[in-house]
Amino acid sequence: MTSKNKKNTAILLISCPDQTGLVRAVTDFLYDNNGNIIYLDQYTDHSCGQFFMRIEWETDNFQIGQDKIGEYFETLLAKKYQMDWSLHFSAKKKRMAIFVTKLSHCLYDILYRFHSKEWEMESPIIISNHENLRYIAEQFKMPFFHFEMNKGNKAEQEAKQLALMQEYDIDLIVLARYMQIVSEDFIDSFSGKIINIHHSFLPAFIGSKPYHAAHKRGVKIIGATSHYVTADLDAGPIIEQGVAHVTHKDKVADFIRKGKDIEKIVLSKAIAAELSDKVLVYNNRTVVFD
Amino acid sequence: MTSKNKKNTAILLISCPDQTGLVRAVTDFLYDNNGNIIYLDQYTDHSCGQFFMRIEWETDNFQIGQDKIGEYFETLLAKKYQMDWSLHFSAKKKRMAIFVTKLSHCLYDILYRFHSKEWEMESPIIISNHENLRYIAEQFKMPFFHFEMNKGNKAEQEAKQLALMQEYDIDLIVLARYMQIVSEDFIDSFSGKIINIHHSFLPAFIGSKPYHAAHKRGVKIIGATSHYVTADLDAGPIIEQGVAHVTHKDKVADFIRKGKDIEKIVLSKAIAAELSDKVLVYNNRTVVFD
Amino acid sequence: MTSKNKKNTAILLISCPDQTGLVRAVTDFLYDNNGNIIYLDQYTDHSCGQFFMRIEWETDNFQIGQDKIGEYFETLLAKKYQMDWSLHFSAKKKRMAIFVTKLSHCLYDILYRFHSKEWEMESPIIISNHENLRYIAEQFKMPFFHFEMNKGNKAEQEAKQLALMQEYDIDLIVLARYMQIVSEDFIDSFSGKIINIHHSFLPAFIGSKPYHAAHKRGVKIIGATSHYVTADLDAGPIIEQGVAHVTHKDKVADFIRKGKDIEKIVLSKAIAAELSDKVLVYNNRTVVFD
Amino acid sequence: MTSKNKKNTAILLISCPDQTGLVRAVTDFLYDNNGNIIYLDQYTDHSCGQFFMRIEWETDNFQIGQDKIGEYFETLLAKKYQMDWSLHFSAKKKRMAIFVTKLSHCLYDILYRFHSKEWEMESPIIISNHENLRYIAEQFKMPFFHFEMNKGNKAEQEAKQLALMQEYDIDLIVLARYMQIVSEDFIDSFSGKIINIHHSFLPAFIGSKPYHAAHKRGVKIIGATSHYVTADLDAGPIIEQGVAHVTHKDKVADFIRKGKDIEKIVLSKAIAAELSDKVLVYNNRTVVFD
Repeated sequence: MTSKNKKNTAILLISCPDQTGLVRAVTDFLYDNNGNIIYLDQYTDHSCGQFFMRIEWETDNFQIGQDKIGEYFETLLAKKYQMDWSLHFSAKKKRMAIFVTKLSHCLYDILYRFHSKEWEMESPIIISNHENLRYIAEQFKMPFFHFEMNKGNKAEQEAKQLALMQEYDIDLIVLARYMQIVSEDFIDSFSGKIINIHHSFLPAFIGSKPYHAAHKRGVKIIGATSHYVTADLDAGPIIEQGVAHVTHKDKVADFIRKGKDIEKIVLSKAIAAELSDKVLVYNNRTVVFD
Repeated sequence: MTSKNKKNTAILLISCPDQTGLVRAVTDFLYDNNGNIIYLDQYTDHSCGQFFMRIEWETDNFQIGQDKIGEYFETLLAKKYQMDWSLHFSAKKKRMAIFVTKLSHCLYDILYRFHSKEWEMESPIIISNHENLRYIAEQFKMPFFHFEMNKGNKAEQEAKQLALMQEYDIDLIVLARYMQIVSEDFIDSFSGKIINIHHSFLPAFIGSKPYHAAHKRGVKIIGATSHYVTADLDAGPIIEQGVAHVTHKDKVADFIRKGKDIEKIVLSKAIAAELSDKVLVYNNRTVVFD
Repeated sequence: MTSKNKKNTAILLISCPDQTGLVRAVTDFLYDNNGNIIYLDQYTDHSCGQFFMRIEWETDNFQIGQDKIGEYFETLLAKKYQMDWSLHFSAKKKRMAIFVTKLSHCLYDILYRFHSKEWEMESPIIISNHENLRYIAEQFKMPFFHFEMNKGNKAEQEAKQLALMQEYDIDLIVLARYMQIVSEDFIDSFSGKIINIHHSFLPAFIGSKPYHAAHKRGVKIIGATSHYVTADLDAGPIIEQGVAHVTHKDKVADFIRKGKDIEKIVLSKAIAAELSDKVLVYNNRTVVFD
Repeated sequence: MTSKNKKNTAILLISCPDQTGLVRAVTDFLYDNNGNIIYLDQYTDHSCGQFFMRIEWETDNFQIGQDKIGEYFETLLAKKYQMDWSLHFSAKKKRMAIFVTKLSHCLYDILYRFHSKEWEMESPIIISNHENLRYIAEQFKMPFFHFEMNKGNKAEQEAKQLALMQEYDIDLIVLARYMQIVSEDFIDSFSGKIINIHHSFLPAFIGSKPYHAAHKRGVKIIGATSHYVTADLDAGPIIEQGVAHVTHKDKVADFIRKGKDIEKIVLSKAIAAELSDKVLVYNNRTVVFD
C-alpha cells in the first residue's frame, strides 16, 4: 500500500440495482473528463440484482475540480441509476481512534503498521477504559485518553468520547479488543465506521469468553472475526476471518495465546481494507475488493 | 497407514484419573511380557486430572495370548488404576457401513481409499434412503441396501437397518452426507461408533442448509466438521474440522461446491483416525493421537 | 459451475498492451450488439503494462452470429489494440484426455466431478502407460488406451497418442500423476493445453521423488502444484498450489499420503479454471480470474 | 506459556539409538527420586532407529539437587544408553540477542511477546548494522548496539559482537530479518543457538530477494521459514514454516507486505519452541515437541 511519488487519486464506491451499461456509464464519465483509471473492479450479485463497483483514477488532469466531483457525479449518473455512492481522495488520510482495554497485541500490530508506513493514515489517538496501555501511547508519542467505565456512567462517558471523536475529526473507530459493549447511540453516531475484532469464528461463540466456550465444545479449529459494529452484538457485516488449528493438548490458555496471533492479523487486514476504501456493505454482508 | 509385511500388533486405548506411575505401569506390563512397543503417546488433561494413553506393541512374541490380554490387563492394571480401556488388534480389520443419500463426493473418497489400500478395513456395505447412488456400489461391486424413509416408517426401517448391521457384524457406521436424522435408539445401539460429517464449522450453523445460512450471514470462511453422533443434533465430540476461504463473489452454489472438497477430506481424516484406533472421547471432547 | 436452464454464453479472453479506453471499447462492442454481459473482470499488470480481461455475455440476442464474432472482433477491435484473444462458447463442451500411470486418487477425483455434473465437459478418455487403472475406466464406462512406454518406443508411442488426440478431437490433456516425461514435440502439439500436477510446492523439489527430498530436507509444510506443461521440466506457468502441514512424526509414506489429498484438490481446481476459460498466460505466469 | 504460581521444573531433552526400555528407564529415574512428571513426549524415528524424548518434572521435592542432576543422569543412564542430552531449568530464563537491520515487524512482534509476558525470558538486547531501529530499543528501554558493517570490517565487528554476547551471557541469537550473512566462525561459536527467519518457503528461493524471485516464477502461495543457522546458507534445520495465498493481482510489494505477516508469526513460533526447550535437531531435521 505504501509507495513513493504516489499520484493523487479519487475513489468511487458505488452500489446500485444492476442495469445494462453501468460500467460504460462510469468509465465514460471518467474518460471524457480526462481521468486516468488505475483500478476498476465490479461485481454483480445476481441473487439480489445489485451491482457494486470500486473505481480509482488519477485526479491531476481531471477536468472536474475535487470539490465538484460529487455534485457532477450525482447529477449526471447517480440519480439516473439510483446509485448509493461515496467518494474518497487518497490525499485525505483517515483519522483513526483505537479503543483498547488491557490487551496489547492488536494495538501494537496497528501502531507498527502506521509507524512503518505500511498504512497511510493520520497519527491515531488511543482511548481506553483502563490505564494499563498508556505506556504504549507514550512509547509512540500518541494521545491517550482514559475513560473509566462503571455501571452508572456509561452514557456520560460515551458522550465525552463522542465529543473527543469530533474534536479529532475521527473517520474510523477500531475496537482493538475493547472489552466494553458500545451503546446503540454511540454506534449510530459512527454507523459503518466502527470495526471490531471478535475472538471467535463468528457466528460461533458470540459474546464473552469465546475461547472458553470453544474449548468446552472441543473444537479443532479456532478463529477470529473482524466486522463492522451494529446494534446486534457480534452480528455486523463480516470483513475478514482467520483460523488456527488446535488439538486436545491445547488448554484454554493456549487457545487464547494462539488466538491472539489470528486476532491481530485479521483485524489489521480489515483496517487495511477500510483505509483503502475497498469495502462496501449490502444486506449485512460485505463486498471486499482486492 | 498401508504397509507390506506389517507385523501383528495390539493397541490399548486407556483413559483414567491421572496418577503417578501410569506410564511405567503400562510399559512394564508390556516389556515384562516381551511386547515390543512401536507406538506410545499419552496426554494428561491437567484441568480435569484425566490421563489418556495409546500404546501399540507387536504381539508375535508376546507371552500372553491374544484372547487373554484383556483379562490380564483388567486384573493386573485396570482395576487398580480405575482405567477405562479398549483393546484392538491390527489383524482384525474393521467392518464399515456407509450411509448415503444422493451426494457422492464423500462416498467416492471413502471407496477410493479402501480400494487403493490406503486404509486397512473389510469391504464396506452401503446403505441409502434413495436409489441414486446404487451405481457406485455396483461400480465397486459392494452390497447396496435401499431403505426408503417416510414419516411413518422410521422405527421399522431403523430396526431393519440394525438387523443388517448385526448380520454384517458392523464395527463403524459412517454417515457420508446421509440426509436423515438418526433416532436416539439407533444411536444408542452404536454408541461412539457413528461418525458424521456436518457441512459447517460447528458449532456454527447447526441443522439443515448450513451453507445457505453461512451465505446469508456473510462469512468469509466456510467449514466442515466430522464428529461422533450423539443424541444432541450436531453436538457430538468433534474429531476433525477443515475450512476454506470464500469471498463476496461466491454464491450459495459456490459455498456448496467448495464445501464438498472440505467435507470429503475432513470425513476421511476422521475415519482414518478411527480405523487406526487413535481417538478417545472424554467430556464430549476427543483426544486424537497422531 | 453447474446450473439448470443455463443460457448460452460466449467468453472472450483478451491480453494486450494497456491503453486508455479498453474496457469501454470491449463493453461498447457487446452492448451495441445486444450482448447481455454476465461476467466482466479485468486486470492490468502495471509493472509490464499489460492488460488482461475476461468477459462473458449471453449470445441469444446477440446481433453477430457465433461464427462471425471472432472475425468482427478481430477487425473492429483486436487489430487496433494489438489484442491477443481467444473466444469460447459455453455450449461447446471441452473434450479431455486424462493421462495416468498407477495412482488413482486424481483420476477418481476428476471422474467424480464429471460424473456428478460438477463440471460441464464431454466424457473424457483415459490414457495410460500401464494397465493398472483400466478397471476405473471400466467402472465409469470410458475408453481406456494403453500405451506401453520403454526406452526405445517413446517417439512412436507419442505419435500414436497424438493421432488418438486428433481422433477424439481433444481440447485439454490432463497429466493426473502420469509418471512419464512428455517430449517437447508432444508438448508443442498441445501448447498451453496440457495441465500437470506436480507433487511438490514448486519451485522446490523439481523432478522425481519430491516427497523423499522434502522429508530429507525436514520441511514442515508440503505442497502440490498444478501448472501448464512447457518444455522446461516443472517450470511452466503455475495455475494453483496447495499445502499441508507435516511434523517430525510424518514419515515419507505419510508425506505421500497427505500429499495425495492436496494433489487431487489442486489439480481439480486448475482443471475447473481451465474448463471455465478463466486462465490467461503471460510471461510464464497465469492470470486466474475467479 | 505464561502462568502464575508456576512451579520450578527441570526439562531433559534426550536423543539416542532406539532400544527397549528407554521410556521406563527415564521415568523410573524420575519417579524413584520423587520427581512429579508434568510433561512426557517421545518419538522414535524408525527409519534411522533414533529415539527422542522431552520430559519435564517438578523439582521442588526432587531428591537430587539441581547441580547434581546432570552428573547423576549421565552416570546412571546416559552412558548406558549412549544418550545425547541437555538439561534445562524453568527458573533459568534465557537471554536473547536480537539482530536486526531496517525492518521492524519481527522485532516488534518479539518485544511485544516479551513485554506482555507471553514469553518468559530475560530482557533482550538488540544489535543492528544500522541505526534505523534504535528508536524501538528506546521505546522499550532496551540496550541497542550498532555495529556498522562494510566489506573490510566483518571479522573485526563480529569479534566485537561475540564479546558482547559473552558479556551479556547470551543463550539465543535471533536474526530478525538481519540482512547480513553471518560468518562460519560466528555460527560455530553459537552452534544450534542462532535462529533465522528466511522470507521464502525453503528450500525454494534461497538467498536474497526471494519475493522478487517468487513473483517472477508466478507462484500462488508464498511462505516464510524459521531455521537454525548453519554454515550452509538457508539450509539449516527448519523449525517452523508458514504460508499465505497470493494471486496474479499481487505485485512484488504485495508479496513483501503479505510476507511480513507470515514472517513475524513463523519466527515467533520458532522462538517460543526454543524458549520452552521443545526442539531437538537430528540429521539436519528438527523434532519439535508440542
